[in-house]
Amino acid sequence: MTNHLLSQLAHVEILSPRPAETVAFFEQQLGLEISERSGQSVYMRGWGEFFHHSVKVTEAARPGLGHVGWRAESAEDLVDVAQALAVTGNGLGWIDGDHGHGPAYRFRSPDDHLNEVFWEVERWQAPPELKSTLRDRPQKYTGRGAAARWLNHVNLSASNVRACREFFQQHLGFRYRGCAVLDGTDKELIAFLAVGALDHDIAFTLDPAGAHGRLNHIAFSLDTREDLMRAADILRDYGPGTIEFGPGRHAPGGSFFLYLREPGGNRIEMYTGETLILAPDWQPIHWFASDNPLAYWGGTVPQSMYTYATPPVDMPQSAQVPSVAGPGSHTAE
Amino acid sequence: MTNHLLSQLAHVEILSPRPAETVAFFEQQLGLEISERSGQSVYMRGWGEFFHHSVKVTEAARPGLGHVGWRAESAEDLVDVAQALAVTGNGLGWIDGDHGHGPAYRFRSPDDHLNEVFWEVERWQAPPELKSTLRDRPQKYTGRGAAARWLNHVNLSASNVRACREFFQQHLGFRYRGCAVLDGTDKELIAFLAVGALDHDIAFTLDPAGAHGRLNHIAFSLDTREDLMRAADILRDYGPGTIEFGPGRHAPGGSFFLYLREPGGNRIEMYTGETLILAPDWQPIHWFASDNPLAYWGGTVPQSMYTYATPPVDMPQSAQVPSVAGPGSHTAE
Amino acid sequence: MTNHLLSQLAHVEILSPRPAETVAFFEQQLGLEISERSGQSVYMRGWGEFFHHSVKVTEAARPGLGHVGWRAESAEDLVDVAQALAVTGNGLGWIDGDHGHGPAYRFRSPDDHLNEVFWEVERWQAPPELKSTLRDRPQKYTGRGAAARWLNHVNLSASNVRACREFFQQHLGFRYRGCAVLDGTDKELIAFLAVGALDHDIAFTLDPAGAHGRLNHIAFSLDTREDLMRAADILRDYGPGTIEFGPGRHAPGGSFFLYLREPGGNRIEMYTGETLILAPDWQPIHWFASDNPLAYWGGTVPQSMYTYATPPVDMPQSAQVPSVAGPGSHTAE
Amino acid sequence: MTNHLLSQLAHVEILSPRPAETVAFFEQQLGLEISERSGQSVYMRGWGEFFHHSVKVTEAARPGLGHVGWRAESAEDLVDVAQALAVTGNGLGWIDGDHGHGPAYRFRSPDDHLNEVFWEVERWQAPPELKSTLRDRPQKYTGRGAAARWLNHVNLSASNVRACREFFQQHLGFRYRGCAVLDGTDKELIAFLAVGALDHDIAFTLDPAGAHGRLNHIAFSLDTREDLMRAADILRDYGPGTIEFGPGRHAPGGSFFLYLREPGGNRIEMYTGETLILAPDWQPIHWFASDNPLAYWGGTVPQSMYTYATPPVDMPQSAQVPSVAGPGSHTAE
Repeated sequence: MTNHLLSQLAHVEILSPRPAETVAFFEQQLGLEISERSGQSVYMRGWGEFFHHSVKVTEAARPGLGHVGWRAESAEDLVDVAQALAVTGNGLGWIDGDHGHGPAYRFRSPDDHLNEVFWEVERWQAPPELKSTLRDRPQKYTGRGAAARWLNHVNLSASNVRACREFFQQHLGFRYRGCAVLDGTDKELIAFLAVGALDHDIAFTLDPAGAHGRLNHIAFSLDTREDLMRAADILRDYGPGTIEFGPGRHAPGGSFFLYLREPGGNRIEMYTGETLILAPDWQPIHWFASDNPLAYWGGTVPQSMYTYATPPVDMPQSAQVPSVAGPGSHTAE
Repeated sequence: MTNHLLSQLAHVEILSPRPAETVAFFEQQLGLEISERSGQSVYMRGWGEFFHHSVKVTEAARPGLGHVGWRAESAEDLVDVAQALAVTGNGLGWIDGDHGHGPAYRFRSPDDHLNEVFWEVERWQAPPELKSTLRDRPQKYTGRGAAARWLNHVNLSASNVRACREFFQQHLGFRYRGCAVLDGTDKELIAFLAVGALDHDIAFTLDPAGAHGRLNHIAFSLDTREDLMRAADILRDYGPGTIEFGPGRHAPGGSFFLYLREPGGNRIEMYTGETLILAPDWQPIHWFASDNPLAYWGGTVPQSMYTYATPPVDMPQSAQVPSVAGPGSHTAE
Repeated sequence: MTNHLLSQLAHVEILSPRPAETVAFFEQQLGLEISERSGQSVYMRGWGEFFHHSVKVTEAARPGLGHVGWRAESAEDLVDVAQALAVTGNGLGWIDGDHGHGPAYRFRSPDDHLNEVFWEVERWQAPPELKSTLRDRPQKYTGRGAAARWLNHVNLSASNVRACREFFQQHLGFRYRGCAVLDGTDKELIAFLAVGALDHDIAFTLDPAGAHGRLNHIAFSLDTREDLMRAADILRDYGPGTIEFGPGRHAPGGSFFLYLREPGGNRIEMYTGETLILAPDWQPIHWFASDNPLAYWGGTVPQSMYTYATPPVDMPQSAQVPSVAGPGSHTAE
Repeated sequence: MTNHLLSQLAHVEILSPRPAETVAFFEQQLGLEISERSGQSVYMRGWGEFFHHSVKVTEAARPGLGHVGWRAESAEDLVDVAQALAVTGNGLGWIDGDHGHGPAYRFRSPDDHLNEVFWEVERWQAPPELKSTLRDRPQKYTGRGAAARWLNHVNLSASNVRACREFFQQHLGFRYRGCAVLDGTDKELIAFLAVGALDHDIAFTLDPAGAHGRLNHIAFSLDTREDLMRAADILRDYGPGTIEFGPGRHAPGGSFFLYLREPGGNRIEMYTGETLILAPDWQPIHWFASDNPLAYWGGTVPQSMYTYATPPVDMPQSAQVPSVAGPGSHTAE
């Protein structure tokens, strides 16, 4: 079978014009741990993560995506993936690796997002004071801030959602979970893809500005909805103005969400409660804008959820933005 | 001390133009139990309630409030309250009682809401199949529907919030918890009052229509936020269109809420997580409309939350409705 | 009415032979805040508490109870209580007060536990960096450690439970919630008493050693069961050996518990989910040892829960300890 | 790569001497749905499951395991698996299928547990009144009883844990998560194996009676720990005597558990909160009996957890049962 080329989303590099503030926010408010500082970058991870890092924060003039890092399913799969990508015209070739992982093959998505695949990883080793009493955990649960546990998925804004989705299906073995479309059309507003049992490891969201290579958000997993509401309380009390939307419940996957902005401007999601999908022959689900898919329980979705991505760009006059007073809103009267 | 004349909110009678549907919704979706049917009324209670009923549903041409029933702190306090009310001009005199309670003294609030106070109550007795294994519970936890546990508070719409609040403070011994005002004014939009340790047993909300005697909502307590989200899931799946607002978190009291509409048109709140207040000398808190007090985590409050009450009335052109895109909304960009 | 002489449990002074470790444990693992250090004592409070302190840790040769502090319902009630206690023979007279509160009348329980009642209190003022965005909270929710929110109740070991219970009912206006007795006897193993709506503010537990004036435990409230399990995780990971029993659910009140030992040796309970009782004429519930009341869901209660109190004493040969393999254990086979 | 031969645990057939009571318990108290009745069997599924059934209850003289049903990763993988099994000597050959799935290849574990693998499945179709408002759910969330969502894993008692584990690793592509051993030995008390991202899909537990082919338990997933405690409340109130152990937290995987017995005598686990494992090269963890792995927070594990399996057998005198007063118990004193 060919659809297990990748085993997981391993890390995302994000760019920040305020790297010190971004790192401080990640450490104190999201509860991430710093693994390493090197050059213009800081490598960080959640308390439940086994690898060297899951987030790399790199100083840049504007916020946005550095690159997305995928781990192959095996050393052989890495070779297979690199060969498959090389013939697509999107392949960029090998790099030596980075702190925490070995040689990586780099490529660009059809919408110009930089990605890489590698196999060799470095396991993070807890210092003695952080060793857990649970033998299968990389470290203690610190409970600091929102206590983000692990990087769950990345969501990339793209001018052509379908092209990106099909590329990841065809050349990287992703499974297609479903999409949301404008009612009466087959225009994909968002498409979800997974390498294994998660609801999705990557999503592509329509970029209404017509820009390329932008970052919609990265999402960290929490164990429970209670953890997510605790995160909202801490962020609201310690960082007024950071919450953009939530806590609430998405329709697709039934997942719980909280969207915020880190000081560098990138959108972060706290995420929990997704439905696992075990069937390899799952049939993709079509949602409609009229389902108000971002807000299962009803209510108005902030317009910024449809328009904002990093780096910010001017929205052209001709941009079509889905209605923000969703027809799925259940407010009678 | 005189501020313990009342011991608790005991019941609320609501009027419904669709009483069979209202009762079926309360029983199946909210999980209430039917205690008795008599004439045009059905008496109901939550699974955690000890008295005969906490809700009386009575058939009527239009939805709205029948009356609010308060239990005195003692037989002597009932006499004291009746005497105090009689001299206010709002006293209506004694009635013999009703199913589930003894003689009651009736009075009208300054905004014309019918209220009564009584002491003698009938304890509900569980049939054998509902007897709990917990000796201090009136019955088993059935888990049916939203499983509303007990009636927590009543919220009455009033054209003069301050007059109502002061009447309940002065003549009934209520403690004043606080209010929300329009920024830069002392115009009370909502005022909270309690007889004991709860955040509030009654609230008065400004009626922008200038009407009198309307019902804003009644609220049932659930044990946990998880119960409240479970309620939202059931209501969304079984009764699309019933959710008006939430789940979310209020600023005052830090309580969690879910607002819905029963088939007769009255607003119901599912409620949990309020802060208890034990100090008899609590200083009332002033909140401001700009705090976005209904939505602590941020976001837009549906306009209906400010305008809808039962029975519905036409909104006059001159009505002033607080901004619904709250200045406390934290959606950057 | 005379049964509102007291408004709340205000503080407990505990003695510790390792005060620095006790304070560090309270601050880092339970999440308490330090209000003041004075002489051999440190004054601390939970993040949700309004007064100067709820716990006073005082250095001593052995662990145990310093004293219990009650706040009166009013200045007049304080005078009434002092007069009532003076004639019992248990009154000790007035003291000037302490950090955080005004003049207090002191007395001893029939089992020799030192108590005091006062009215005047000092409100704790948050420094700017801890001011909450919620206007009705004394400070931000820090999320540090177990994040104990407020002191809920105190449990005193006593050789004559009934005498203590009746004293608090008759002279201090406590309401009697219920007790657990040995099956077939009226020997009270534990009795619960409340000043208001809480399940209990104080309990007396039979001291099988026949000693006097010992402390069974003090309990801190958390908002949710999830908070309590989070507390268990943190304590297990950071302080192996501190958990004595739980998390689990009691039968009386349906409350959730976690029992632990602080470094000085005193037992601490983390507590949540109690049922509020609003009826002034609540009829006391009798539980039986065979109900396994400490463990509603079943299972074995550690023997130490029946034998340990502070200061520790030698258990006499004649001591009768309730069976620890509770007959309420539901392990079939 | 060869380690994706199977995609998921699809169903377990359990035998019951009281099939009507077993089915009623599953339907009313666990909240399962009945898919079909045929001959001496009833086919059932959780509300979140997509296939025809996950549990088949078959009348028999004694409780125990009927068989375990695995779904292959693809039609080709089914052929590969059958060929691999045929040469082991444990293969039994093909059957035509059963209600809900197509042709299956059957085999016996080294300890004589009947298993089968198939690819073709029938999707369950909700009747109109159970259609969910969520497009990716097979039906509404009913909230009935414990509301078990999906079959998570099966645990088989075996006299040779290691032989079973190695068979499933070598011939079926299972990943080995870890085991618990007696301190100072390499005797495996329990071993965990997975086909994908779950903590485990199957476990083998040492059978101290030296019997073969017995069932330890089957486990259903709930979404949250709150759901699990709600399950405990309902089972305790409606079915006194059914709870064997829990709610509590395991050390391996950090999962939350509640063990009970269905009326036919088989052990059922309610399960939630497991850690997902995404790395294909996960290194198996060794736990020790002294870790008290069944009870992370501490406390005593009922002896029956080590001795009971179905069908029940007499325990030989020579049986070695791990200490039930676990050395990991944290009860000081």
